[in-house]
Amino acid sequence: MNRIVRHGVTSRWSDAVVHGGVGYFVEVPDDPGLDCEGQFRQVLQQVEQRLDQIGSDMQHLLQVVIYLPDPSDLTCFNEIWDAWVPSGHAPSRACIHAALAAPGYRVELVITAALIAE
Amino acid sequence: MNRIVRHGVTSRWSDAVVHGGVGYFVEVPDDPGLDCEGQFRQVLQQVEQRLDQIGSDMQHLLQVVIYLPDPSDLTCFNEIWDAWVPSGHAPSRACIHAALAAPGYRVELVITAALIAE
Amino acid sequence: MNRIVRHGVTSRWSDAVVHGGVGYFVEVPDDPGLDCEGQFRQVLQQVEQRLDQIGSDMQHLLQVVIYLPDPSDLTCFNEIWDAWVPSGHAPSRACIHAALAAPGYRVELVITAALIAE
Repeated sequence: MNRIVRHGVTSRWSDAVVHGGVGYFVEVPDDPGLDCEGQFRQVLQQVEQRLDQIGSDMQHLLQVVIYLPDPSDLTCFNEIWDAWVPSGHAPSRACIHAALAAPGYRVELVITAALIAE
Repeated sequence: MNRIVRHGVTSRWSDAVVHGGVGYFVEVPDDPGLDCEGQFRQVLQQVEQRLDQIGSDMQHLLQVVIYLPDPSDLTCFNEIWDAWVPSGHAPSRACIHAALAAPGYRVELVITAALIAE
Repeated sequence: MNRIVRHGVTSRWSDAVVHGGVGYFVEVPDDPGLDCEGQFRQVLQQVEQRLDQIGSDMQHLLQVVIYLPDPSDLTCFNEIWDAWVPSGHAPSRACIHAALAAPGYRVELVITAALIAE
Protein backbone atom coordinates (compact mmCIF):
# COMPACT_ATOMS: atom_id res chain seq x y z
CA MET A 1 0.00 0.00 0.00
CA ASN A 2 2.65 2.48 1.06
CA ARG A 3 4.30 2.65 -2.33
CA ILE A 4 6.73 5.50 -2.97
CA VAL A 5 5.92 7.90 -5.81
CA ARG A 6 8.67 10.25 -6.96
CA HIS A 7 8.12 13.36 -9.09
CA GLY A 8 10.81 15.13 -11.11
CA VAL A 9 13.60 12.66 -10.36
CA THR A 10 17.17 13.75 -11.15
CA SER A 11 20.50 12.21 -10.17
CA ARG A 12 20.64 14.59 -7.18
CA TRP A 13 17.10 14.93 -5.88
CA SER A 14 13.45 14.42 -6.62
CA ASP A 15 11.18 17.45 -6.82
CA ALA A 16 8.75 15.64 -4.54
CA VAL A 17 8.41 12.24 -2.90
CA VAL A 18 5.09 10.79 -1.76
CA HIS A 19 4.65 7.91 0.70
CA GLY A 20 1.87 6.82 3.03
CA GLY A 21 -0.39 9.72 2.17
CA VAL A 22 2.33 12.28 2.88
CA GLY A 23 4.33 14.36 0.41
CA TYR A 24 7.86 15.63 1.07
CA PHE A 25 9.38 18.39 -1.03
CA VAL A 26 11.80 21.32 -1.04
CA GLU A 27 11.45 24.54 -3.01
CA VAL A 28 13.78 27.38 -3.89
CA PRO A 29 12.66 30.11 -6.30
CA ASP A 30 13.11 29.27 -9.96
CA ASP A 31 14.60 32.69 -10.60
CA PRO A 32 17.21 33.78 -8.02
CA GLY A 33 17.60 37.00 -10.00
CA LEU A 34 14.33 38.34 -8.59
CA ASP A 35 14.28 40.69 -5.60
CA CYS A 36 13.15 39.34 -2.25
CA GLU A 37 9.46 40.05 -2.80
CA GLY A 38 9.64 38.49 -6.25
CA GLN A 39 11.41 35.40 -4.93
CA PHE A 40 8.95 34.95 -2.07
CA ARG A 41 5.90 35.25 -4.33
CA GLN A 42 7.48 32.91 -6.85
CA VAL A 43 8.45 30.20 -4.39
CA LEU A 44 4.99 30.14 -2.84
CA GLN A 45 3.46 29.85 -6.30
CA GLN A 46 5.81 26.93 -6.94
CA VAL A 47 4.60 25.35 -3.69
CA GLU A 48 1.01 25.58 -4.93
CA GLN A 49 1.94 23.95 -8.22
CA ARG A 50 3.88 21.20 -6.45
CA LEU A 51 0.99 20.51 -4.10
CA ASP A 52 -1.31 20.19 -7.10
CA GLN A 53 1.19 17.90 -8.82
CA ILE A 54 1.31 15.44 -5.93
CA GLY A 55 -2.43 15.46 -5.21
CA SER A 56 -2.45 17.88 -2.31
CA ASP A 57 -3.37 21.53 -1.88
CA MET A 58 -2.75 24.55 0.36
CA GLN A 59 -5.31 23.31 2.88
CA HIS A 60 -3.19 20.19 3.45
CA LEU A 61 0.15 21.66 4.47
CA LEU A 62 1.44 19.96 7.62
CA GLN A 63 4.80 21.60 8.29
CA VAL A 64 7.01 24.18 6.63
CA VAL A 65 10.59 24.91 7.69
CA ILE A 66 11.67 28.24 6.23
CA TYR A 67 15.34 29.05 5.70
CA LEU A 68 15.91 32.78 5.16
CA PRO A 69 19.59 33.71 4.73
CA ASP A 70 19.00 37.41 5.32
CA PRO A 71 17.20 38.26 8.60
CA SER A 72 16.17 41.62 7.14
CA ASP A 73 13.94 39.73 4.68
CA LEU A 74 11.71 38.39 7.43
CA THR A 75 9.17 41.22 7.45
CA CYS A 76 8.74 41.06 3.69
CA PHE A 77 8.46 37.27 3.79
CA ASN A 78 5.87 37.30 6.56
CA GLU A 79 3.65 39.80 4.77
CA ILE A 80 3.53 37.65 1.66
CA TRP A 81 3.27 34.42 3.68
CA ASP A 82 0.41 35.65 5.87
CA ALA A 83 -1.63 36.68 2.83
CA TRP A 84 -0.88 33.34 1.17
CA VAL A 85 -1.76 30.90 3.96
CA PRO A 86 -5.40 29.79 3.70
CA SER A 87 -7.40 30.96 6.70
CA GLY A 88 -7.79 28.19 9.26
CA HIS A 89 -5.27 25.91 7.59
CA ALA A 90 -1.84 27.26 8.62
CA PRO A 91 0.89 24.62 8.89
CA SER A 92 3.33 24.15 11.72
CA ARG A 93 6.16 26.57 10.88
CA ALA A 94 9.78 27.17 11.83
CA CYS A 95 11.93 30.01 10.50
CA ILE A 96 15.72 29.80 10.57
CA HIS A 97 18.37 32.18 9.28
CA ALA A 98 21.11 30.24 7.53
CA ALA A 99 23.05 30.42 4.29
CA LEU A 100 21.81 28.42 1.31
CA ALA A 101 23.84 26.35 -1.13
CA ALA A 102 23.61 28.69 -4.12
CA PRO A 103 24.31 32.41 -4.07
CA GLY A 104 21.34 34.62 -4.77
CA TYR A 105 18.63 32.48 -3.26
CA ARG A 106 16.79 34.33 -0.52
CA VAL A 107 14.61 31.46 0.68
CA GLU A 108 14.42 27.68 0.82
CA LEU A 109 11.33 25.84 2.04
CA VAL A 110 11.25 22.27 3.39
CA ILE A 111 7.67 21.08 3.21
CA THR A 112 5.57 18.20 4.50
CA ALA A 113 2.00 17.96 3.19
CA ALA A 114 -0.85 15.48 3.33
CA LEU A 115 -2.45 14.13 0.17
CA ILE A 116 -6.09 15.07 -0.31
CA ALA A 117 -7.44 11.62 -1.02
CA GLU A 118 -5.81 9.77 1.86
CA MET B 1 -9.30 8.44 7.95
CA ASN B 2 -6.20 10.60 7.75
CA ARG B 3 -7.99 13.79 8.64
CA ILE B 4 -5.88 16.82 9.58
CA VAL B 5 -6.37 18.30 13.06
CA ARG B 6 -4.86 21.73 13.71
CA HIS B 7 -4.29 23.22 17.17
CA GLY B 8 -3.81 26.93 17.89
CA VAL B 9 -4.33 28.13 14.32
CA THR B 10 -3.27 31.70 13.49
CA SER B 11 -2.86 33.45 10.16
CA ARG B 12 0.86 32.58 10.22
CA TRP B 13 1.14 29.11 11.75
CA SER B 14 -0.60 26.45 13.75
CA ASP B 15 0.81 25.52 17.15
CA ALA B 16 0.53 21.88 16.12
CA VAL B 17 -0.78 19.85 13.18
CA VAL B 18 -1.79 16.20 13.44
CA HIS B 19 -2.20 13.79 10.54
CA GLY B 20 -2.03 10.03 10.17
CA GLY B 21 -1.14 9.41 13.78
CA VAL B 22 1.76 11.86 13.68
CA GLY B 23 1.99 15.33 15.21
CA TYR B 24 4.15 18.13 13.84
CA PHE B 25 4.99 21.18 15.91
CA VAL B 26 7.56 23.88 16.57
CA GLU B 27 8.37 25.47 19.92
CA VAL B 28 10.27 28.55 21.02
CA PRO B 29 10.27 29.64 24.67
CA ASP B 30 7.26 31.75 25.66
CA ASP B 31 9.57 34.17 27.49
CA PRO B 32 12.70 35.15 25.53
CA GLY B 33 13.67 37.34 28.48
CA LEU B 34 14.76 34.31 30.48
CA ASP B 35 18.42 33.25 30.61
CA CYS B 36 19.51 30.20 28.64
CA GLU B 37 18.75 27.72 31.42
CA GLY B 38 15.35 29.29 31.97
CA GLN B 39 14.54 29.23 28.25
CA PHE B 40 15.60 25.60 27.88
CA ARG B 41 13.54 24.45 30.86
CA GLN B 42 10.58 26.48 29.66
CA VAL B 43 10.62 25.25 26.08
CA LEU B 44 10.81 21.62 27.16
CA GLN B 45 7.88 22.17 29.51
CA GLN B 46 5.98 23.66 26.57
CA VAL B 47 6.82 20.54 24.55
CA GLU B 48 5.28 18.38 27.27
CA GLN B 49 2.14 20.49 27.29
CA ARG B 50 1.91 20.39 23.50
CA LEU B 51 2.35 16.63 23.42
CA ASP B 52 -0.47 16.31 25.95
CA GLN B 53 -2.64 18.67 23.89
CA ILE B 54 -2.33 16.59 20.74
CA GLY B 55 -2.73 13.20 22.42
CA SER B 56 0.92 12.25 22.63
CA ASP B 57 3.53 12.21 25.40
CA MET B 58 7.28 12.26 26.01
CA GLN B 59 7.54 8.53 25.31
CA HIS B 60 6.28 9.13 21.77
CA LEU B 61 8.79 11.64 20.44
CA LEU B 62 10.07 10.56 17.03
CA GLN B 63 12.46 13.30 15.96
CA VAL B 64 13.65 16.64 17.33
CA VAL B 65 15.72 19.12 15.35
CA ILE B 66 17.29 21.62 17.75
CA TYR B 67 18.37 25.07 16.56
CA LEU B 68 20.69 26.76 19.04
CA PRO B 69 21.93 30.19 17.88
CA ASP B 70 24.76 30.32 20.42
CA PRO B 71 27.14 27.34 20.36
CA SER B 72 28.22 28.14 23.91
CA ASP B 73 24.69 27.20 25.06
CA LEU B 74 25.12 23.58 24.02
CA THR B 75 26.48 22.24 27.30
CA CYS B 76 23.69 23.87 29.29
CA PHE B 77 21.08 22.65 26.83
CA ASN B 78 22.38 19.09 26.88
CA GLU B 79 22.36 18.90 30.68
CA ILE B 80 18.72 19.94 30.81
CA TRP B 81 17.80 17.82 27.79
CA ASP B 82 19.47 14.65 29.09
CA ALA B 83 17.62 14.93 32.40
CA TRP B 84 14.35 15.55 30.55
CA VAL B 85 14.36 12.74 27.99
CA PRO B 86 12.54 9.66 29.35
CA SER B 87 14.96 6.74 29.75
CA GLY B 88 14.69 4.34 26.82
CA HIS B 89 12.55 6.70 24.72
CA ALA B 90 15.01 9.22 23.27
CA PRO B 91 14.03 10.61 19.86
CA SER B 92 16.22 10.93 16.80
CA ARG B 93 17.98 14.27 17.33
CA ALA B 94 19.92 16.82 15.29
CA CYS B 95 21.50 19.98 16.70
CA ILE B 96 22.29 22.95 14.46
CA HIS B 97 23.70 26.36 15.26
CA ALA B 98 21.82 29.02 13.33
CA ALA B 99 20.17 32.36 13.98
CA LEU B 100 16.45 32.48 14.77
CA ALA B 101 13.86 34.90 13.48
CA ALA B 102 13.36 36.92 16.65
CA PRO B 103 16.14 38.39 18.78
CA GLY B 104 16.50 36.95 22.26
CA TYR B 105 15.38 33.40 21.53
CA ARG B 106 18.10 30.92 22.44
CA VAL B 107 16.43 27.80 21.08
CA GLU B 108 13.87 26.60 18.54
CA LEU B 109 12.68 22.98 18.38
CA VAL B 110 11.13 21.30 15.34
CA ILE B 111 9.33 18.21 16.58
CA THR B 112 7.72 15.10 15.14
CA ALA B 113 5.81 12.86 17.55
CA ALA B 114 3.50 9.87 17.35
CA LEU B 115 0.03 9.94 18.87
CA ILE B 116 -0.52 7.53 21.75
CA ALA B 117 -3.71 5.95 20.50
CA GLU B 118 -2.60 5.22 16.96
CA MET C 1 -0.06 -1.32 14.83
CA ASN C 2 1.91 1.91 14.78
CA ARG C 3 4.28 0.84 17.49
CA ILE C 4 7.50 2.82 17.91
CA VAL C 5 10.78 0.94 17.48
CA ARG C 6 13.96 2.67 18.65
CA HIS C 7 17.48 1.64 17.66
CA GLY C 8 20.65 2.58 19.55
CA VAL C 9 18.92 4.41 22.40
CA THR C 10 21.07 6.59 24.65
CA SER C 11 20.09 9.16 27.26
CA ARG C 12 20.42 11.89 24.61
CA TRP C 13 19.14 10.41 21.36
CA SER C 14 18.26 7.26 19.50
CA ASP C 15 20.26 6.33 16.44
CA ALA C 16 16.98 5.73 14.63
CA VAL C 17 13.26 5.75 15.41
CA VAL C 18 10.67 3.88 13.36
CA HIS C 19 6.92 4.49 13.40
CA GLY C 20 4.12 3.87 10.93
CA GLY C 21 6.38 2.47 8.25
CA VAL C 22 8.70 5.47 8.36
CA GLY C 23 12.19 5.73 9.85
CA TYR C 24 13.71 8.92 11.24
CA PHE C 25 17.43 9.24 11.83
CA VAL C 26 20.36 11.65 11.91
CA GLU C 27 23.94 10.90 10.91
CA VAL C 28 27.26 12.63 11.40
CA PRO C 29 30.51 10.92 10.35
CA ASP C 30 31.93 8.52 12.93
CA ASP C 31 35.39 10.00 12.40
CA PRO C 32 35.49 13.82 12.32
CA GLY C 33 39.26 13.57 11.83
CA LEU C 34 38.77 12.60 8.18
CA ASP C 35 39.02 15.18 5.41
CA CYS C 36 35.83 16.34 3.71
CA GLU C 37 35.83 13.61 1.08
CA GLY C 38 36.49 11.00 3.75
CA GLN C 39 33.70 12.32 5.96
CA PHE C 40 31.20 12.44 3.12
CA ARG C 41 31.94 8.89 1.98
CA GLN C 42 31.81 7.68 5.56
CA VAL C 43 28.53 9.34 6.49
CA LEU C 44 26.79 7.97 3.39
CA GLN C 45 28.09 4.50 4.20
CA GLN C 46 26.65 4.94 7.70
CA VAL C 47 23.32 5.90 6.12
CA GLU C 48 23.33 2.65 4.16
CA GLN C 49 24.04 0.67 7.30
CA ARG C 50 21.33 2.50 9.24
CA LEU C 51 18.79 1.92 6.47
CA ASP C 52 19.62 -1.78 6.56
CA GLN C 53 19.33 -1.82 10.34
CA ILE C 54 15.80 -0.39 10.33
CA GLY C 55 14.52 -2.48 7.41
CA SER C 56 14.88 0.09 4.66
CA ASP C 57 17.36 0.69 1.85
CA MET C 58 18.71 3.38 -0.46
CA GLN C 59 15.72 3.01 -2.77
CA HIS C 60 13.41 4.06 0.07
CA LEU C 61 14.85 7.44 1.05
CA LEU C 62 12.07 10.02 1.29
CA GLN C 63 13.81 13.22 2.38
CA VAL C 64 17.33 14.27 3.32
CA VAL C 65 18.19 17.65 4.85
CA ILE C 66 21.92 18.25 4.51
CA TYR C 67 23.75 20.63 6.84
CA LEU C 68 27.17 21.60 5.49
CA PRO C 69 29.04 24.09 7.71
CA ASP C 70 31.55 25.03 5.01
CA PRO C 71 30.00 26.21 1.72
CA SER C 72 33.24 25.37 -0.09
CA ASP C 73 32.56 21.67 0.64
CA LEU C 74 29.43 21.66 -1.53
CA THR C 75 31.08 20.66 -4.81
CA CYS C 76 32.91 17.76 -3.16
CA PHE C 77 29.74 16.66 -1.35
CA ASN C 78 27.63 16.78 -4.49
CA GLU C 79 30.09 14.68 -6.48
CA ILE C 80 30.03 11.94 -3.87
CA TRP C 81 26.28 12.29 -3.30
CA ASP C 82 25.38 12.13 -7.00
CA ALA C 83 27.38 8.93 -7.45
CA TRP C 84 25.78 7.46 -4.32
CA VAL C 85 22.08 8.13 -4.98
CA PRO C 86 20.46 5.16 -6.73
CA SER C 87 19.28 6.11 -10.21
CA GLY C 88 15.57 6.87 -10.25
CA HIS C 89 15.25 6.89 -6.46
CA ALA C 90 16.60 10.29 -5.38
CA PRO C 91 14.99 11.69 -2.22
CA SER C 92 13.65 15.17 -1.69
CA ARG C 93 16.73 17.16 -0.66
CA ALA C 94 17.57 20.46 1.03
CA CYS C 95 21.08 21.77 1.62
CA ILE C 96 21.78 24.38 4.30
CA HIS C 97 25.03 25.95 5.45
CA ALA C 98 25.10 26.16 9.25
CA ALA C 99 27.46 25.33 12.08
CA LEU C 100 27.19 21.95 13.78
CA ALA C 101 27.36 21.16 17.48
CA ALA C 102 30.80 19.56 17.53
CA PRO C 103 33.94 21.03 15.98
CA GLY C 104 35.39 19.08 13.10
CA TYR C 105 32.20 17.68 11.65
CA ARG C 106 31.74 18.74 8.04
CA VAL C 107 28.25 17.33 7.52
CA GLU C 108 25.09 16.34 9.36
CA LEU C 109 22.19 14.56 7.64
CA VAL C 110 18.58 14.52 8.85
CA ILE C 111 16.87 11.62 7.12
CA THR C 112 13.36 10.30 6.59
CA ALA C 113 13.01 6.89 4.93
CA ALA C 114 10.25 4.40 4.26
CA LEU C 115 10.52 0.80 5.45
CA ILE C 116 10.68 -1.80 2.70
CA ALA C 117 7.97 -4.08 3.98
CA GLU C 118 5.34 -1.46 4.67
